Amino acid sequence: MMNYPLLLKSPLYRAKTIFPEKEIVSRGYNGVFRYTYRDLYDRVCRLANALDRVLGVKALEHVGSFAWNHHRHLELYYAVPCSQRVLHTVNIRLFPEQIAYVINHAEDKVLFVDEDLLPLIEAVAPKLTTVQAYVVMTDNDKLPETKLTNVYHYEELIRQGDPHFDFPTFDENTPALISYTSATTGNPKGVVYTHRGLYLHCLTVLVDELGTREADVTMPVVPMFHVNAWGRPYADTWIGAKQVYPGPRPTAKDLADLIHNERVTYSAGVPTIWMGILNHVRQHPGEYDFSCVRFFMSGGSALPAALTEAYEKELGVKLYQGYGQTETSPVTFVSFPKTSLKDLPDEEKYRLRAKTGLILPGLEMKIVNEKGEEVAHDGKEMGELLLKGPWIIDSYYKDPEKTKEAFTEDGWFRTGDIATIDENGYLQIVDRVKDLVKSGGEWISSVDLENALMAHPAVMEAAVIAIPHEKWQERPLACVVLREEYRGKVTKEDLQAHLSKMVAKWWLPDDYVFVEEIPKTSVGKFSKKTLREQYDKGQLVSMY
Amino acid sequence: MMNYPLLLKSPLYRAKTIFPEKEIVSRGYNGVFRYTYRDLYDRVCRLANALDRVLGVKALEHVGSFAWNHHRHLELYYAVPCSQRVLHTVNIRLFPEQIAYVINHAEDKVLFVDEDLLPLIEAVAPKLTTVQAYVVMTDNDKLPETKLTNVYHYEELIRQGDPHFDFPTFDENTPALISYTSATTGNPKGVVYTHRGLYLHCLTVLVDELGTREADVTMPVVPMFHVNAWGRPYADTWIGAKQVYPGPRPTAKDLADLIHNERVTYSAGVPTIWMGILNHVRQHPGEYDFSCVRFFMSGGSALPAALTEAYEKELGVKLYQGYGQTETSPVTFVSFPKTSLKDLPDEEKYRLRAKTGLILPGLEMKIVNEKGEEVAHDGKEMGELLLKGPWIIDSYYKDPEKTKEAFTEDGWFRTGDIATIDENGYLQIVDRVKDLVKSGGEWISSVDLENALMAHPAVMEAAVIAIPHEKWQERPLACVVLREEYRGKVTKEDLQAHLSKMVAKWWLPDDYVFVEEIPKTSVGKFSKKTLREQYDKGQLVSMY
Repeated sequence: MMNYPLLLKSPLYRAKTIFPEKEIVSRGYNGVFRYTYRDLYDRVCRLANALDRVLGVKALEHVGSFAWNHHRHLELYYAVPCSQRVLHTVNIRLFPEQIAYVINHAEDKVLFVDEDLLPLIEAVAPKLTTVQAYVVMTDNDKLPETKLTNVYHYEELIRQGDPHFDFPTFDENTPALISYTSATTGNPKGVVYTHRGLYLHCLTVLVDELGTREADVTMPVVPMFHVNAWGRPYADTWIGAKQVYPGPRPTAKDLADLIHNERVTYSAGVPTIWMGILNHVRQHPGEYDFSCVRFFMSGGSALPAALTEAYEKELGVKLYQGYGQTETSPVTFVSFPKTSLKDLPDEEKYRLRAKTGLILPGLEMKIVNEKGEEVAHDGKEMGELLLKGPWIIDSYYKDPEKTKEAFTEDGWFRTGDIATIDENGYLQIVDRVKDLVKSGGEWISSVDLENALMAHPAVMEAAVIAIPHEKWQERPLACVVLREEYRGKVTKEDLQAHLSKMVAKWWLPDDYVFVEEIPKTSVGKFSKKTLREQYDKGQLVSMY
Repeated sequence: MMNYPLLLKSPLYRAKTIFPEKEIVSRGYNGVFRYTYRDLYDRVCRLANALDRVLGVKALEHVGSFAWNHHRHLELYYAVPCSQRVLHTVNIRLFPEQIAYVINHAEDKVLFVDEDLLPLIEAVAPKLTTVQAYVVMTDNDKLPETKLTNVYHYEELIRQGDPHFDFPTFDENTPALISYTSATTGNPKGVVYTHRGLYLHCLTVLVDELGTREADVTMPVVPMFHVNAWGRPYADTWIGAKQVYPGPRPTAKDLADLIHNERVTYSAGVPTIWMGILNHVRQHPGEYDFSCVRFFMSGGSALPAALTEAYEKELGVKLYQGYGQTETSPVTFVSFPKTSLKDLPDEEKYRLRAKTGLILPGLEMKIVNEKGEEVAHDGKEMGELLLKGPWIIDSYYKDPEKTKEAFTEDGWFRTGDIATIDENGYLQIVDRVKDLVKSGGEWISSVDLENALMAHPAVMEAAVIAIPHEKWQERPLACVVLREEYRGKVTKEDLQAHLSKMVAKWWLPDDYVFVEEIPKTSVGKFSKKTLREQYDKGQLVSMY
């Protein structure tokens, strides 16, 4: 067969060739912007030419983006890698010192910045050692006032650019994108995505029940500034779906409006997004028609069963779950009910829906216990999930030490997640390796305890951490945020009684702390590291 | 990203890991056989061990199959390539001298033969120069009487085989399958399919509207002995679909029964198969319930619009079209209506459905006229279709001369097909390069004329060939098979009048010949080469 490399210009080529008329919609501060794949192709060519001629970025050099999900970011997703540069999608949620760290570490030569995010970049600009030029992405004709120097106007670059560009052909293992983990300890770690890896990842997420199709209207809420928006910008272009980008700082109302107005059939995001939309729709009965929706994909953290049920019963919308990591491009597992399970009772079905999912085509997994033995497929034995596959990292960028820790001797990537797998092949992530409570040689899943606690109507948020114990080595401590109306009414004993019905006795937390909120990481996950630090300093005490 | 090769063990791994309970059904002479993916995996391991230990086939050596579509053939599809040998699927429809030629040319070491096809192999066995052993695939306990020597019983090999096999990891560009074209001129040409090529082909056919899914029940009627059954054995295993194999010599009744009984949702085959099933169902009103069917894929030759319409109106079944060649793994285009065309009038929609289709993700095309210039995307300008992509050949097996003819200087594969492409990206194959009628410097599509003729109720089959003409260089001659009841009643003038309403005046055939049947190639296509030879010898004359 032909030696034909797998490159990201493939989706772009297909869309402009057979779907030139189909629409891309992008929400801005001044309303909704629309254009077609034909326009996208034209502008990507102009942008690639501008990178050559105006900005002088060389092959394989890094170009940073600091932006929301919108059509200009989509143009960067194509123009930069398809012209053989590397797009570094900087996570706008990182702390300022981390932002400076990742841009310097990646050695970005040019930084494309959304106008409304300029202040964040201006604040760190003095620390940036490699950036030679800034490009401001704005709907306004004029550049805003800025302290930055060597600043370009994005639309001016597009206007000046030549609409003809001959996208080069090169080795498929060439880097395309770079993203950094949202580190809870130390500096963020860099992950380099190759054309081949992203090509295979994005083609594979199009397969089977949870794949999108030409007839879909897709809206990635999951950010383009973090793990490639789960691959949607490439996947959905390949099939010529109508794409809807939610733009800057989307509120739950913005998202619900876009779904309703653009007749979105598919969206992808984290559970907090779905909670926000649900609450908004509940508050505006009769205003939203979501009958257009085929399903939504949820990922990033475990999907609460109660949320799935509420979506299905109140909105008539199916929520499915996916799983992955920055290091895995990200998607590795998706959860949908197999036909062989269609005759299960409803309750069992909801239980299955809460599972993490089935492994994607093309990947290989292993779940091993502390001795390195594979666990039984019984849904009970726990072990660390190891992965191999064409879109799993083989190293962290310029970080041999962290790289060494992340792999087994025979080359498996250590996900750092503890999982079970059942007889039907459904994986269930039960905890992070470092969050497990190791009590008397046995493992207690902090995540299971949290889910059980959050099923109590009074509990808004709950995080469980391990605290040292003389006899048992570690024991669980539950940190709980009660809903306003329950504060002072629901006690530790109530929660303990609630849990007793759901988990083994030896899993029950040794103590409860009622707090105002659970500290979060830059991407909105519970920061158990912060809780552990607070505990060590004696700062973790009940507030009410 | 990991250096993780794309190998055909991937679908097998996924199916045994997460779909062990799902079913594979295989029709035999003694009824329908059923087992699961768990059983498939077990038997594939045993077979791979038998290739090692009993048959002594070395890495990269060729193993032939001479068989219908059934579970044992599926086992060969995995055990041979996944243990790093190459499976040569010998086309059972070739002429005996061609069968001997391809087996010798491929240098097959072992030949797996269906019991009912033994006579065909016994007849050519004395001419086979490389085959060292035969394995008979049979449902009977004992080996049949045979003139062959060194003969094994398939089930005996399986029984003796060890159910544990460690499938090796090797370069993804390693050959996996080999197939030969059904040559109309000279010897068949060999096409070698690599693991990488088939992996990408089979993953890609799972994408979008016409992809199959876990919930499907798939029945490949398209033969496993010719162009890989369009990739179904790998694609449908990857997603864990229930697979139905129609077994030896399936009649229209057998196929209709399987669809009805096994609740088939998807099938793939050539137009003559669909005609046969339609006729059978028409003759047995009320006996068949096809409401389970999502759609059928048709390929191999143009899908008559009348057939599409009959399926939709009489059976409630959608027929869609695909296109490809032995040299292209085979699928390159599939036809489904884009959403942007959903508001077209019905008539326009049927016209679109008759188009060849939209290019698959990952491929690149060019349609060039005689001067090598790309044609306009207007649905009118004709040119030869050229292709590039990871599952397009770069050579014919051991045939540098034919290889040279098949490619342009800049590496495009010449399909030998003349096509147009319209503003919506739909390709339409209008003819084979060698079947075009070149009249006064203009091109007339023989296929268009044939389709127009076959739309006449009296016409059963029609083939148009170019005959020499002093002034115009070439002119069309129509060879027509009239339905019994119209013979002697419908005249040349009637057909000319019918055509006049459908094509330009200068396209009208110079003459008509009424024949008993159109000669066919080994795979059932019209053999225009034979017609041209008959014409040259003065043997092409009206029979009625």
